[in-house]
This record gives sequence, structure tokens and C-alpha cells, in this order.
Amino acid sequence: MTALHTETLRDVVEQELAQLFSQYATRAQAYGPEFAHLWTLAARHVQGGKLIRPVLLLEAYEALRSGREASPVVATSGDGGPSPSPVTPPAAGRAQAVRVAAAVEALHYAFLVHDDLIDGDVMRRGRPNLIGELAGTVLERTRTRRRLHWAETGGILAGDLLLSAAHQQFARVDLPTANRTRLLDLLEHTIIETTAGELTDVGLADGIVAPDLGTILAMTARKTASYTFELPLRAAVILAGGSPELEAALSSAGYHLGLAYQLQDDLLSTFGDPAVHGKDPYSDLREGKQTAIVCFARMTSAWPSIEADFGDPELSVESAMRIRELLTECGAEQFARGLVEEQLTAFYGILAGGSGERHVPAEVREVLLNLVARIEGRQS
Amino acid sequence: MTALHTETLRDVVEQELAQLFSQYATRAQAYGPEFAHLWTLAARHVQGGKLIRPVLLLEAYEALRSGREASPVVATSGDGGPSPSPVTPPAAGRAQAVRVAAAVEALHYAFLVHDDLIDGDVMRRGRPNLIGELAGTVLERTRTRRRLHWAETGGILAGDLLLSAAHQQFARVDLPTANRTRLLDLLEHTIIETTAGELTDVGLADGIVAPDLGTILAMTARKTASYTFELPLRAAVILAGGSPELEAALSSAGYHLGLAYQLQDDLLSTFGDPAVHGKDPYSDLREGKQTAIVCFARMTSAWPSIEADFGDPELSVESAMRIRELLTECGAEQFARGLVEEQLTAFYGILAGGSGERHVPAEVREVLLNLVARIEGRQS
Repeated sequence: MTALHTETLRDVVEQELAQLFSQYATRAQAYGPEFAHLWTLAARHVQGGKLIRPVLLLEAYEALRSGREASPVVATSGDGGPSPSPVTPPAAGRAQAVRVAAAVEALHYAFLVHDDLIDGDVMRRGRPNLIGELAGTVLERTRTRRRLHWAETGGILAGDLLLSAAHQQFARVDLPTANRTRLLDLLEHTIIETTAGELTDVGLADGIVAPDLGTILAMTARKTASYTFELPLRAAVILAGGSPELEAALSSAGYHLGLAYQLQDDLLSTFGDPAVHGKDPYSDLREGKQTAIVCFARMTSAWPSIEADFGDPELSVESAMRIRELLTECGAEQFARGLVEEQLTAFYGILAGGSGERHVPAEVREVLLNLVARIEGRQS
Repeated sequence: MTALHTETLRDVVEQELAQLFSQYATRAQAYGPEFAHLWTLAARHVQGGKLIRPVLLLEAYEALRSGREASPVVATSGDGGPSPSPVTPPAAGRAQAVRVAAAVEALHYAFLVHDDLIDGDVMRRGRPNLIGELAGTVLERTRTRRRLHWAETGGILAGDLLLSAAHQQFARVDLPTANRTRLLDLLEHTIIETTAGELTDVGLADGIVAPDLGTILAMTARKTASYTFELPLRAAVILAGGSPELEAALSSAGYHLGLAYQLQDDLLSTFGDPAVHGKDPYSDLREGKQTAIVCFARMTSAWPSIEADFGDPELSVESAMRIRELLTECGAEQFARGLVEEQLTAFYGILAGGSGERHVPAEVREVLLNLVARIEGRQS
């Protein structure tokens, strides 16, 4: 799978999203300028991401289709289990996959908006997010409290609308009933996982849930791995008419990859170069974010020196750098890097192993290995 | 349609909701006690309403089915328009209707939770709402700000989960594709209408949208009529395999009835006896709620005397009673009562008139006349 091809798939998703949102924006006109503006903002912001999830879905879908076309034996089931659906014509199948891919991005953005709302964030990656933009467009004469209330209301409602749009796209997919039900089950499962992960994350930050390593890793898997990697991979299998066994294998692969990805993200946020990764430097330390890194440090003798400043919203750059050093010296950085390795080892194990229906076709393996190369090399 | 029968339908909806939520609550166990608790609260609160919407849906559905069984001519279309679907066996059709009815109530409650969140309410009808209960169950040692943050997070996520549950139930309805698509279109339309209405409502309260009568009435119709009356009636027609023309007729009837209902609600809140209607007395005046009543008063010479205290969160009972008197004297109360009459006249016109496919069957008329009698007579 070449970088050029990924670029093309990204264009396809962007076009699908643009079309979907332009339909909604047109309908919104009938409800006054404020509602139309909300949709315009949503359309712009939903297009702002890297489209990792929908591109992964389409890459995996095409890999599965090409694998199947090369060896039609995959398309039939001889073990008396549920029969895969009849092969759909390529163009029609592709159109359904593109629709679901766009829905996955809409879902991602719905989660982002509500996440920002929960965190009280009005910025994302150095620019105003949807809520920040809404607050900024209200007439100057409006009092600050009302402007923020208006903007937060827009955030709640935009998230609801995007969540609904995602459901609507999944519900309208033209697939045989059994596969449509699998897809709806997957969407429901993903929303429950992500929501549960978010609740735990907030519970950790608010000091309501105890920060043990098991809880933190489960939260990480639910909040990130589930909808970022498992959802696109499983959806691709269902759309391509693949077996539940292959879906389970790719779900596990996505789980381990997602966990590695998020742990790597935590490492980057704490130890990476802010000039390169572009995030608010030390925000994790300032927010007191409960990560695997911090969880390890808590069990070491370095913790009393870290604890004093950890989670201080006014944390100075000097103190932040000191905490970073302590986290490295006490072995927390090394521990987290070890966890990333463990997850990647499990991931490679699934790709290499697996026989019968759990065997991961070579084309899909290539997609995943390319993805992991991008993740391992990333600085942001 | 006897009161006894309404009672039975309410039981049916309660059982369906109990079953649906017990499945979700069981699944939630796997995600820790906080998530399980959130579902338990959601299950309890979703059962707390009057179930007006699902009962209306089932009453209308049964009326349409009984009308069709009596005069099978309704079930066929002779004008070359879209043919109604083949008649489903009564029990299977009823099960689908019950599923959608429960979904309509889940949707209603999703809206309520996010509405409470937007309004910053922790109480509903004199008791803690879901957010209030969540805040109350957090350990005492947690700081107030964090407890509220945790509770509001629970409110956002519970709303998202319930909205998703509603979509999932609609998406899984076992109907021919054309009718399933009609049902999905209806759900999408309803969510857009309600969300747009809510945004306007908040815009009016925050002083961002200008409070003219047209805007206020459109907001009222969208925020209330659309999902309370139009959704159940239209869903009943689709589930019973009725024509788009009948759906349009009942949609109009629901629109006028819903507007009358909400205007009546505004009248009750301002002029009714709090001891009877059980709501926070004068809360509309204290919040500065933009209603048709206030909109009329703004154009009269009484307004300067009203404006001084209107929207004062600390409004005294004496001042509230004085505003009430002024609103009656300046003709605003009479004006709003006139609007209710107008809407009811339009409603009766639709029930009486209408020929061909727009003709409202006698059984459905009876359901609606019973409903309007309950609404007209209500004190709360």
C-alpha cells in the first residue's frame, strides 16, 4: 500500500464527508442562521483531522477484497458456521465502505467535541476548536458567561448531531440483514466501550476512580484502541463479507496496536519535543493525567518529589523539566516503553500466527505493517 | 380508547424499557462500578416519565391496524403512488411498534438529560435528576467542583448512550427496506428539528437570538411538537404500513396539537397554581424565558414595568405576582389563550377534513380527541 494510495483514499473520504455535510448544511438553512452556522463549523472541523480511522478502514477493506478476488476460497465457508454473504459487485461494495468510513470519522469527531466539552477545552492543536469558534463569533456586547454558555450548548448539540449522523449512515448501509446487524452490533459495542473509557478517564482525573495500572490500561484500550483501530478493522471485515473469526483476529490486533499507539502518545507528550509534536508542552503533567508512566512512578521512591508539583495548573517549565527527569530516573519512562514493546509483540504475534479463519491475509498484513511503521516513526 | 387500555399500553412500554435497560446494565458491569451505576440511574430515570409519547404511538398504531382490518381498502393504493407494504402478522407488527415506542421514550430522555445539562439543572419535578443523583453519590471528601464535573460528565455520556440506544432500536426494526428508510428519515428529521429548536431556545435565553413571535413559535414547534406528537404519530403510520399522505396529515395534526400543548404549558407555568402543577413557581419569569406571552407584553405599554424584574434570578414572590397581574392586564394572557384556540381549531380542522389518503380514520380520530381532552383538562 503506497503513500500515494493512502492519499487517494483520504481524498475519497474527504469528498464523502463534504457531500454528507453539505446536505446537512443545506437542510439547516431552514432553521435560521445560528443552526446553519453550527453545521458549517461542524463540516469544517470534521475535515480537519488526519482521517486515520476511515483510511485504515478503506485500506483494510480493499486489501480483503483483493485477497478474496485472488483466492475465492475465502468467500465460502465449509465448516457449517455462518456463511459469508454473497460477493457484492466491487463498485457497490466500495460505495458502502466509503459511507461507513465517513461515518467512523463523524463518530470520532462527535467524541472529540464532547471530550473537549468535558475537559473545558476551547482549543485543539493550537487553534480554536468548534466551541472556541462559536464563542468567538458571538457579538462582543454579549456577556462572557452567556457567550461561553452559548458555545458549550453548541458543542453539546453538535456532538449529538454528529453522533446521530454516524448512526444514520451505519443504519442505511445496503448489506444483507445478518451483516447489517453485525455492523450495528459493532457500532453499539464501540460506543459503549468508548463512553466507558471516557467515564473512567474523567473519574481518574477527578479522583473518583483509583489509579491502578489495570484500570489505566483498560481505560486506554477502551477510550482509544476500540474506536480508532478495532472499529475500522472489524467494519472492513464485515463489509468485505469476511468471517467472524477473522474479525476477532483483527479486533485483537487492533486492540494491541491501539494500546501501543496511546502509550506512545503518552510518552511523546511527556518526553517528546513540543516543537516537533506541536502539543501543549507538559499539559499531561499540568493536568495531572493518570498515565501508565505516572502509575509506575507512584510506586517508586521518586514519587514524593514528583507528587508535590504533579497536577499543578500553574506548573512552571523548570518544574515540568524536573518531573520529566525524575520520571526517567525512576524507571517510569523505561517501563512505559516496555509496555509499548509488549503490545507490539502481541500485535506481531497475531499477524504472524493464526490458522484457518483466523489467518490474516497477506494484503491486510501489509496494511497493518505500514500503519505500525508510521506510528513507530511518528514524532507527533 | 379507554383509560384502562392506556394503562395497559403504559405497562407494555415499561416492560420493554425495563428489558432493554437491563440488557445494557448487565453489559455495563464489565466496565466497572461507575459505568454500571450510570446505567442503573439511566434505567430508573427513563422510567420516571408519563410515557405520553410511546403510549400515543401505540394507541395510534393499534387504531390504524384495527381500522385497516375493518376496511381493507385502506391497505391498498390505487393511484399509482408508493404501495403500502404487505400486511404484517399482528403480533410481529405489534412487537416492532413496541420496540420503536420504547426507543421514542429513550430519545425523549436523552434530550431531557442534555437539556438539564444545558440549563445547569440538577433537579426535575422537585427531585434530583440524573446529574443531581450522580453528584450526590460521590464520596463526601471529593471537592464540590470535581463532584459537579463528574456528574455533568455522566450527564453528557448518559445522553449520548441513550441517543445511541434510540438509533439502534430504530435501525433494527424488522420492516421492508422502504418503510425502514421512512422510519430512519423520520428519526433524523426529528433530531434535527429538536436540536434546532433547543439551539434557538438557548439563543433566546442568552440574548443571542431576537425574541420575535415567529421565532418563538417556530422554536416551540420544533422543540416540543416535533418529537412529542409528530414523531409518535408518523411512526405509527409507517409501522402500520399507512400512506405518506396520511403520515403528512397526522404530522400536521401533531404540529398544531404540540404547539397548543406547549403554549398551554407556558400559560400554566405563569398563571397556574404551583400547588397543583408542581413546578417551581415563577421559574419562567425568574429565568426570563422568552414565551409568546412575554413576546406580546413586550409590545404593550406595560413592558417597562415588567422588564425591570423579568429574568431576575432573585425575583421575590411579590414581584412575580405583580408581573403576573401585569401580564393579564396588558392582554398577554388572553393573547396566548387565543393562540392555543387557533392551534386547536387547525387541529380539529385536520381531523374533520381530509379526503382520500389524507382522511384520518375514525379510530385514530378517537385517540387524538381523547388525548386533547386530557391536555385541555390538565392542571400539570
